[in-house]
Amino acid sequence: MEKVIIGVDLGGTNIKAGAVGPDGKVRYRTRLTTDAAKGPEAVADRIAQAALNCVENTKGGKESTLGVGVGSPGPLDLRNGIVIFAPNLPGWENVPLRSMIEKRTGLPCTLENDANAAALAEQWAGAGKGTSSLVILTLGTGIGGGIVLDGKVLHGFSDVGAEIGHMSINPDGPACGCGNKGCVEAYASATAMVRRMRETLAKGCKSMLARKADKLTARDISEAALAGDEAACENIEMTGFYLGVAIANILHILNPEYVVMSGGVSAAGDLLMNPIMKTLQERSIPASRKGVKICWTALGDDAGVLGAARSFAIEHGVF
Amino acid sequence: MEKVIIGVDLGGTNIKAGAVGPDGKVRYRTRLTTDAAKGPEAVADRIAQAALNCVENTKGGKESTLGVGVGSPGPLDLRNGIVIFAPNLPGWENVPLRSMIEKRTGLPCTLENDANAAALAEQWAGAGKGTSSLVILTLGTGIGGGIVLDGKVLHGFSDVGAEIGHMSINPDGPACGCGNKGCVEAYASATAMVRRMRETLAKGCKSMLARKADKLTARDISEAALAGDEAACENIEMTGFYLGVAIANILHILNPEYVVMSGGVSAAGDLLMNPIMKTLQERSIPASRKGVKICWTALGDDAGVLGAARSFAIEHGVF
Repeated sequence: MEKVIIGVDLGGTNIKAGAVGPDGKVRYRTRLTTDAAKGPEAVADRIAQAALNCVENTKGGKESTLGVGVGSPGPLDLRNGIVIFAPNLPGWENVPLRSMIEKRTGLPCTLENDANAAALAEQWAGAGKGTSSLVILTLGTGIGGGIVLDGKVLHGFSDVGAEIGHMSINPDGPACGCGNKGCVEAYASATAMVRRMRETLAKGCKSMLARKADKLTARDISEAALAGDEAACENIEMTGFYLGVAIANILHILNPEYVVMSGGVSAAGDLLMNPIMKTLQERSIPASRKGVKICWTALGDDAGVLGAARSFAIEHGVF
Repeated sequence: MEKVIIGVDLGGTNIKAGAVGPDGKVRYRTRLTTDAAKGPEAVADRIAQAALNCVENTKGGKESTLGVGVGSPGPLDLRNGIVIFAPNLPGWENVPLRSMIEKRTGLPCTLENDANAAALAEQWAGAGKGTSSLVILTLGTGIGGGIVLDGKVLHGFSDVGAEIGHMSINPDGPACGCGNKGCVEAYASATAMVRRMRETLAKGCKSMLARKADKLTARDISEAALAGDEAACENIEMTGFYLGVAIANILHILNPEYVVMSGGVSAAGDLLMNPIMKTLQERSIPASRKGVKICWTALGDDAGVLGAARSFAIEHGVF
């Protein structure tokens, strides 16, 4: 009988879970709200509920289920399966999530950082399928990063590697939440795009976004740009420039085969991709960019679930 | 009988070679001028001569010699053992150095980038002995980089990874030789230090270096700083700041256990290390710097020879 792994993508708002087959395809998927306000024990209950729901909907049930891989925000203590803290999950401090899920499900469990899981998913079954080296940038409220080299996640000495969003590209740049200045996250995250757009609007610049300045989102900016709004286009172009500067650095340092980007801002499509590619053309060493593919995620909503399952598969040497 | 590997460090001025034992110690060393002007064939002759000199001075001669590891500047084609080009070796274009040395010595040969070899040497027998993750910055005319992760060199998709000197830390910064702007090499290499010192002197700033502005070297600046020259101290401090910004990025992206620096500017010692550490304290995420060691090379002149030998050992699965 076919074996599956349950992949769980733990977010601040939703818990996504799926039964994943050896071919990197999701056989069954489910979603629950996280109800993060209720605290870690309640969230662990809901993770287990979502995972067991997938098990029940798998042919063969528990007999066919190898285990549960969880992708979690956080800095994590991987060896001990602990979420050290998670900015979007109130009350999470040193939560032994791995053992909590093992107890609740009766299945072996592994824990992986969510951006690392997304990188694994793209390398296993997504945009960079079959490559051995891939970097992912998750463009959202912040900018997360995941690095796969030689087919393995780069965890680093203290499990906190791949914080690509906190690469400074200007020592005198805007302050970043991390304490540093000029981080790429402070230039090209959704938050930074909105901040820059508000600054533009405050100068009295004409834009269809003027009347919703208070409730602006990065998606609004993408949509306005696609509709031809000049100020929004300029905002996207600057975002692409800063991402290009950062990706040039990634090519020089890591020389990966793939750089994959995900996040709502991908809606801007070529309006964002073109300035990225132009900047790479101007600023990266030709040998470092030769043959390198810069692209959007091919997995969309499934990336977290697939990557979490994949990290279980790697840790247990299955699939 | 003890086996040795001959390590060769090919530079623009000198060829250093040594017989290296399994304990990471150099048993016998020799040095020849490169005579680079005579072209690749003549240089290959001299590399072979230096290597065979080491073999002759090894107990057991060829019987005890496993092979020759060469550390070369360049971009290299590692699979085919070719030096694609080397800025300081005139006429070197697609030189099949590995087979040229094999023919001349009758010994198996491997090729590795010189900065990668230096990183391997530090991880094997130097400042980061026994660690699995280490980054080296070679501070010279340019800034080279080498990355060891999980005990292996990060070569990258096209063998051009670890070009850490070409990480831009300011998109509007000074032009770099590579075509990019604001590379850390354009701020903190010996060349950049001298350029900045000349600019300071041109403003009429008081300094013991004023009279030798034309022939200034980074070593002069280090020495003047150690002698208390204020303008020189400020130059070193700025250099440390920029290196700190770059190293913070390295900690965030790679989270290595060790960052090792080498090069003549290490003569400045704590005058350079202090502003690096201050900048890291201010700008790096605490979890990324926790337990990380930032230090100078412990191998000095032997690093290239040891690393070249080590890369042979890894490739052939010996020692």
